[in-house]
Amino acid sequence: MSSHTISVAVIGATGFAGVELVANLAMHPIFSVDCITSTTEQGSTLGSLYPSLLGTRADQVLVDPAHVDFAQFEYVFLAVPHTTAMEIVPRLHKDTKVIDLSADYRISDAQSYEHWYGKKHSSADLLEDSVYALPELFSSEIADASLLSCPGCYPTAAALALGPLVTKWPTAADRPIYIDAKSGISGAGRSATAATHYCSAADSVRPYKVGVHQHTPEIEQTLSRLANQTVSVMFVPHLVPMIRGLLVTCYVPLSEPISSNEVIEYYQAFYAQSPFVTVLEDGQSPSTSSVARTNAAHVSVHIDERTNTLVACCAIDNLGKGAATQAIQVANIAAGLDESCGLATIGSVV
Amino acid sequence: MSSHTISVAVIGATGFAGVELVANLAMHPIFSVDCITSTTEQGSTLGSLYPSLLGTRADQVLVDPAHVDFAQFEYVFLAVPHTTAMEIVPRLHKDTKVIDLSADYRISDAQSYEHWYGKKHSSADLLEDSVYALPELFSSEIADASLLSCPGCYPTAAALALGPLVTKWPTAADRPIYIDAKSGISGAGRSATAATHYCSAADSVRPYKVGVHQHTPEIEQTLSRLANQTVSVMFVPHLVPMIRGLLVTCYVPLSEPISSNEVIEYYQAFYAQSPFVTVLEDGQSPSTSSVARTNAAHVSVHIDERTNTLVACCAIDNLGKGAATQAIQVANIAAGLDESCGLATIGSVV
Amino acid sequence: MSSHTISVAVIGATGFAGVELVANLAMHPIFSVDCITSTTEQGSTLGSLYPSLLGTRADQVLVDPAHVDFAQFEYVFLAVPHTTAMEIVPRLHKDTKVIDLSADYRISDAQSYEHWYGKKHSSADLLEDSVYALPELFSSEIADASLLSCPGCYPTAAALALGPLVTKWPTAADRPIYIDAKSGISGAGRSATAATHYCSAADSVRPYKVGVHQHTPEIEQTLSRLANQTVSVMFVPHLVPMIRGLLVTCYVPLSEPISSNEVIEYYQAFYAQSPFVTVLEDGQSPSTSSVARTNAAHVSVHIDERTNTLVACCAIDNLGKGAATQAIQVANIAAGLDESCGLATIGSVV
Amino acid sequence: MSSHTISVAVIGATGFAGVELVANLAMHPIFSVDCITSTTEQGSTLGSLYPSLLGTRADQVLVDPAHVDFAQFEYVFLAVPHTTAMEIVPRLHKDTKVIDLSADYRISDAQSYEHWYGKKHSSADLLEDSVYALPELFSSEIADASLLSCPGCYPTAAALALGPLVTKWPTAADRPIYIDAKSGISGAGRSATAATHYCSAADSVRPYKVGVHQHTPEIEQTLSRLANQTVSVMFVPHLVPMIRGLLVTCYVPLSEPISSNEVIEYYQAFYAQSPFVTVLEDGQSPSTSSVARTNAAHVSVHIDERTNTLVACCAIDNLGKGAATQAIQVANIAAGLDESCGLATIGSVV
Repeated sequence: MSSHTISVAVIGATGFAGVELVANLAMHPIFSVDCITSTTEQGSTLGSLYPSLLGTRADQVLVDPAHVDFAQFEYVFLAVPHTTAMEIVPRLHKDTKVIDLSADYRISDAQSYEHWYGKKHSSADLLEDSVYALPELFSSEIADASLLSCPGCYPTAAALALGPLVTKWPTAADRPIYIDAKSGISGAGRSATAATHYCSAADSVRPYKVGVHQHTPEIEQTLSRLANQTVSVMFVPHLVPMIRGLLVTCYVPLSEPISSNEVIEYYQAFYAQSPFVTVLEDGQSPSTSSVARTNAAHVSVHIDERTNTLVACCAIDNLGKGAATQAIQVANIAAGLDESCGLATIGSVV
Repeated sequence: MSSHTISVAVIGATGFAGVELVANLAMHPIFSVDCITSTTEQGSTLGSLYPSLLGTRADQVLVDPAHVDFAQFEYVFLAVPHTTAMEIVPRLHKDTKVIDLSADYRISDAQSYEHWYGKKHSSADLLEDSVYALPELFSSEIADASLLSCPGCYPTAAALALGPLVTKWPTAADRPIYIDAKSGISGAGRSATAATHYCSAADSVRPYKVGVHQHTPEIEQTLSRLANQTVSVMFVPHLVPMIRGLLVTCYVPLSEPISSNEVIEYYQAFYAQSPFVTVLEDGQSPSTSSVARTNAAHVSVHIDERTNTLVACCAIDNLGKGAATQAIQVANIAAGLDESCGLATIGSVV
Repeated sequence: MSSHTISVAVIGATGFAGVELVANLAMHPIFSVDCITSTTEQGSTLGSLYPSLLGTRADQVLVDPAHVDFAQFEYVFLAVPHTTAMEIVPRLHKDTKVIDLSADYRISDAQSYEHWYGKKHSSADLLEDSVYALPELFSSEIADASLLSCPGCYPTAAALALGPLVTKWPTAADRPIYIDAKSGISGAGRSATAATHYCSAADSVRPYKVGVHQHTPEIEQTLSRLANQTVSVMFVPHLVPMIRGLLVTCYVPLSEPISSNEVIEYYQAFYAQSPFVTVLEDGQSPSTSSVARTNAAHVSVHIDERTNTLVACCAIDNLGKGAATQAIQVANIAAGLDESCGLATIGSVV
Repeated sequence: MSSHTISVAVIGATGFAGVELVANLAMHPIFSVDCITSTTEQGSTLGSLYPSLLGTRADQVLVDPAHVDFAQFEYVFLAVPHTTAMEIVPRLHKDTKVIDLSADYRISDAQSYEHWYGKKHSSADLLEDSVYALPELFSSEIADASLLSCPGCYPTAAALALGPLVTKWPTAADRPIYIDAKSGISGAGRSATAATHYCSAADSVRPYKVGVHQHTPEIEQTLSRLANQTVSVMFVPHLVPMIRGLLVTCYVPLSEPISSNEVIEYYQAFYAQSPFVTVLEDGQSPSTSSVARTNAAHVSVHIDERTNTLVACCAIDNLGKGAATQAIQVANIAAGLDESCGLATIGSVV
């Protein structure tokens, strides 16, 4: 396929985001996954944990990260839990480019991080080196960064739904944006818990972490930066019975009338160069199944004149565009490749 | 079980709400289902359409309503589509008590009905005789009414979530309440369509009828009546992959601070005499599976001080409390029985 | 409802079968659940673990069984894991009637038990006192027994599907019956494991314990007893993505031709007095959803002349007829009540 | 990617197999989909019917096949219903290579076809030109054929599970093989029917077409051909609540003892050159989710010495290896490409 390859490693390859990353990297024409690590399942093959990988290039042996010299890899992807990444990155970051899927370097204000994540930041000095790597909104900063912090799943969807709006139309300063989010169960991670038990999760929907979800400050940081003013959000996530997929439904109180056509046209122009974002026609709404297992985002915008509300929706795959494939998109840009390189362009029809 | 029975009929027994009604009435100690009708499947047994009814008291033969004298029944339940009920009720309503599960007599303003339902009301003169039969809020009016109009599924949940609030705390007059609703697929009815196909509905979530759902004016009518002032709502329903269940997540911009404790205590007192409503403790959120296949409602209230927002949630079963079992609760009250009579008090644990 | 009540206890009330038992007993007109125990969650309310029970009669406090004198209860239900029950029953069984939902007293041959369950039987002397309590087949033995051993979920379905056949038509002595079974995920129990994680269990089907499932000897014991000759079975269970429900599809090589009509008529006569069993018409097949959350069993029989095979199917609810409600049916018979007493007669239509 | 392309057309592009074919062909480096047809939805874009295709290369306009000269395409894929294909193929087959996904040219005996499909074969003279295109078993015949008949979904899985066995070990001549199959709901097609309604299909499992499914003779034909003797099968398919995936569990009465190791080793050698087939280790069983949305097949074999039974399982994706991607694998071989060309090698990890 290609005359050169780029050697990469994945730290934390057994969680859902990590294994999704390895599976997608294993099909990439340029990146070569030469090391996958796990502190708890070292010695196992990834295929023994995830049988869909049996006999594929992703069916590699997990190694103990303590025994690896990561300087040999051009890129190191971190797919470890938040509050763990900040213990690891300081040791890597001078020797190699780091693409971090955790939350640890997303929030530029260490105090805010500590408030929402409940733990003191142990390498806050690196926050100023970190770039918030959301390609559709902040692509230009990705190329030269050595510490790329990938957005969370909910913040990715919220930013894609609301980013164009707040760059152009100021929202009412004294009113929050209400974001009602729905995530598939894989968003709760690989751990077997009461909440992820099939008999608890199936055939039911429920809110969780009402008003206290740790993605709230990340959403506000992105929107405020784009709006060039403080934007506050009231964020309520829900678990819905699907394996993968994430939808945000955002309610924006408008301070002045806008027409649906005007805003949709603006969104379409805004995303005209973004191969992974589709802005739906007026009256259409996104389904998570339409973007499942891809890096795609479907965005809709609707103006309700009766209540002077804008409703913006965005559907993504929480493990794809919300985590693993977005990290590859970021790595593609960082490496000077086409941002779509190696990413399947068409999702499942059913 | 009982020394007397009350003879009832069900018109439109083959839709999901209708058959759910027949199944529950067949287990009721007082009501005796003596006639079930269908214009399209007359002659069939209900068990041939719904095999769970095979060999039970609900496995009756469907008859053509054109050949029935409904005056012989004390109560006639209507489970026909909206805009169909208004053609039937005028012929029944002088001879028998009517319990209508359709939307046709819920909206007291005929013009509003016509706007949202897209059809002229053919018996608008009966609207003033109709009582909006939501037992937890308007119980006193049920006993003497001859035309009982049962609430819709979304309006039931929204009214239970927000009713106590608006009776006591005025909401900001110029700001709508944002209601994000999630319904199981049975809410879309028995018709086999592209949207109800398993491969379309499973493993996905999507909004529909954004800002234009016909339950909007019904919600506004109830809340405005309780608040004694105009309340407007921005309502967005979603389809989620579960058979039964309905959740509303309501975002209320507060004009003055309230504490979570204060509002939860008020809710608990408000519903103290309502056997079917449970107000959850602070920090708890309802799951639809906890109320599935029952007449129960689980309500939570949360105050977000950061954004000065109240978030109220209510989970019900869309076919139970949202339709069939609520209709039986209404009939119980109308007949002078205990409102719980014949209704299972405990749902499924998984 | 009734002038007397019968006081009962449930040991092991927090597992799926245990809580299902408590929930159903709490709606029973005669049995009064006066004690529920848990060794791991004592002090908690059952409603805190299973929110559908909040505010109901089943929302009782779990107590430590070590502090309970079980002699005060007329019946003690055991819903503890197999190999645990045999440690408990010897201490109870002289003082009260025991209804055991575990496997420990089902297999009359202690050696077979030890082979399939991998543990020496610690109270094998009680095996001869135990009655195998499958009401549709062995009802007469239930009334006088003090140790009632309730059948497993798969063996219940297999026995109902094949029982009538083997009582009348000898099967080929040298050929096993092939039983392909499908169970909902609740059959794997309440433990949160990799196998019960939503993302593993949803949208997939897989066989497990091929040829080595511990229900195999129980099925063979029942069929051999009914056939009055040795019957061997090859049993393969599968996990399918549903919360509740169990289907067996049984393939019986016939040694002589039989007609479908003949065998269906025989089955219908066989079960004529069994209120919970429905034998389907020729050409019909059972769905698990038609019996979910009930004590019902739907049975079909089909003769394939081309291959000289009889295919018998039976659908039940694994936690209902396969565990908790069958235990109540057994208790009803033991207590001289109607076997249907307190058991809902109609399941969910969708 | 490539210096040349091969122009192809897809007739019947709107059904599940057809659209899956178009979506996969649109990502293929050599085949260029230059025409997609529909007799009922001509003029629509495929993306309007399947939103996951919006903005992709598969979002083409459907044209009326009556206006197309198919001689311009090197390959024409037919994804029309059985009994429809036989009306179309005679008109195409001299001008272009035909890859037919329907059943119409699979059964070499026209009388058998007519018996099982209930319709006279209108182009039986072409049956002798048709090649049964199952690459892992009959690869050598594919290269030169002009009419390639792709196997059905169940027959593909059954042949992969049992093919190696019957080539080496004769099965008992007088005993059928029992095949218990489980399919996801997409196997029932795109039509919205009572059976495919979410509320009917979800959370349930049921057998259908017991002993009369039209794939029976196709399975027997393949196994008999491989065994070089008559093999009969008793085949019972089931619908299980998953979107995609298919599992066969096959019970083979053995006439002589074989060891698990011996047979597993033989299977592994048999499939050593087949990139899409993985033979699992002893004791492992396949899950459909491990092969969903791929062309992969996972096969397990287990010997039960107790009952002298071999149990062989095979999991595939019914629309992938069971239809669309297998058709592309066939086209790859026919075109002299690598059989994996353009087919994703790694499925979804969750």
